[in-house]
Amino acid sequence: MKNSSDKPRGLLLVVSGPSGAGKGTICGLLRKELPELCYSVSVTTREPREGEVDGREYFFKTVAQVKDMIFRGELLEYAQVYGNYYGTPKPYVMNLLNEGKDVLLEIDIQGALQVKKVFPDGVFVFVMPPSLEELRARLYKRGKDTEEVIEKRLKAAAGELKSSSGYDYVVVNDIAEEATQRVLTLLEAERYRAKRNGYLIDKILGQNA
Amino acid sequence: MKNSSDKPRGLLLVVSGPSGAGKGTICGLLRKELPELCYSVSVTTREPREGEVDGREYFFKTVAQVKDMIFRGELLEYAQVYGNYYGTPKPYVMNLLNEGKDVLLEIDIQGALQVKKVFPDGVFVFVMPPSLEELRARLYKRGKDTEEVIEKRLKAAAGELKSSSGYDYVVVNDIAEEATQRVLTLLEAERYRAKRNGYLIDKILGQNA
Repeated sequence: MKNSSDKPRGLLLVVSGPSGAGKGTICGLLRKELPELCYSVSVTTREPREGEVDGREYFFKTVAQVKDMIFRGELLEYAQVYGNYYGTPKPYVMNLLNEGKDVLLEIDIQGALQVKKVFPDGVFVFVMPPSLEELRARLYKRGKDTEEVIEKRLKAAAGELKSSSGYDYVVVNDIAEEATQRVLTLLEAERYRAKRNGYLIDKILGQNA
Repeated sequence: MKNSSDKPRGLLLVVSGPSGAGKGTICGLLRKELPELCYSVSVTTREPREGEVDGREYFFKTVAQVKDMIFRGELLEYAQVYGNYYGTPKPYVMNLLNEGKDVLLEIDIQGALQVKKVFPDGVFVFVMPPSLEELRARLYKRGKDTEEVIEKRLKAAAGELKSSSGYDYVVVNDIAEEATQRVLTLLEAERYRAKRNGYLIDKILGQNA
């Protein structure tokens, strides 16, 4: 039994998927539904988009700063996506989990698969677009990328969908509110996983020892 | 990817746990909530209890008949519990799953662990009593066993709780209705498992091939 202490460790929820699948929207809704969920803010070297605040959406860093963090082993995962660095500060996440707090990570596919190696007990959710046509429509509607970048993202997405088999769950994001409910459901179910309940058996048997 | 056909295979839900934990009550409630869930009726050599009907609670068989079924490989699992044989008819369950239907099995711990070897993709739920004192109280209240059998069951239960780590989920049965809701939640979550959604990716990519 893995968790045989008297208190379960926090749960690491990783929400990932192709650009435009809607992981950001789902994570926003999750945070509203579960205000106690800790949100890991990533570092990035990309330019802030309109309305983004340093330390809220991302910690905006220079390439030199991020390379320094990588060198010091301060990133749980990092990736270069379309020329920019993205990474997850490691000590922050580790401390929260050890305190028994649940942590939400919203990261791209490369990053999620890296984290899975370090935290196989995390809950890895792949947000799946209902179709590639819908994904294209969303990327255009979002209006955050150039046509060239959108086509690049779509080309990548077809391959990325296949990597969903390395995740624990696949949630189709047809309607964001419904997809969020599905994530809440699987999160609740994960609390009943035998591997997270070793402490419970110890407790019951301990009462009668 | 395991399930790459266009239709997912039926889901095998195995509800198990110590005698008196309440798996029968939970299965009864599950069947009310999910009338489409197929219920596998077991064979047994034990005497029918008051109100039990052959072919509904169990197929009541002689020891010779059950031994014959074992010999012909017609049981998915079988066990001797307190001197009686219990077993699950194999062809019945296999056919339903292949037709895409979900099947509920209510079996003891020995049986569940046997089925897990044959069907690792099944969903294995361990129904956990809130405490050993409560388990004792329930067995006495149920009034179906002699004091000797109850003490035998309690002695077994302490060891059985530890085998819960071989299951997928542990559901504490404090209040049967709430425990049933937990099973419904994890059943829904299981439908989002990546390993059950290979067909979905094929479908999305196929649309665009």
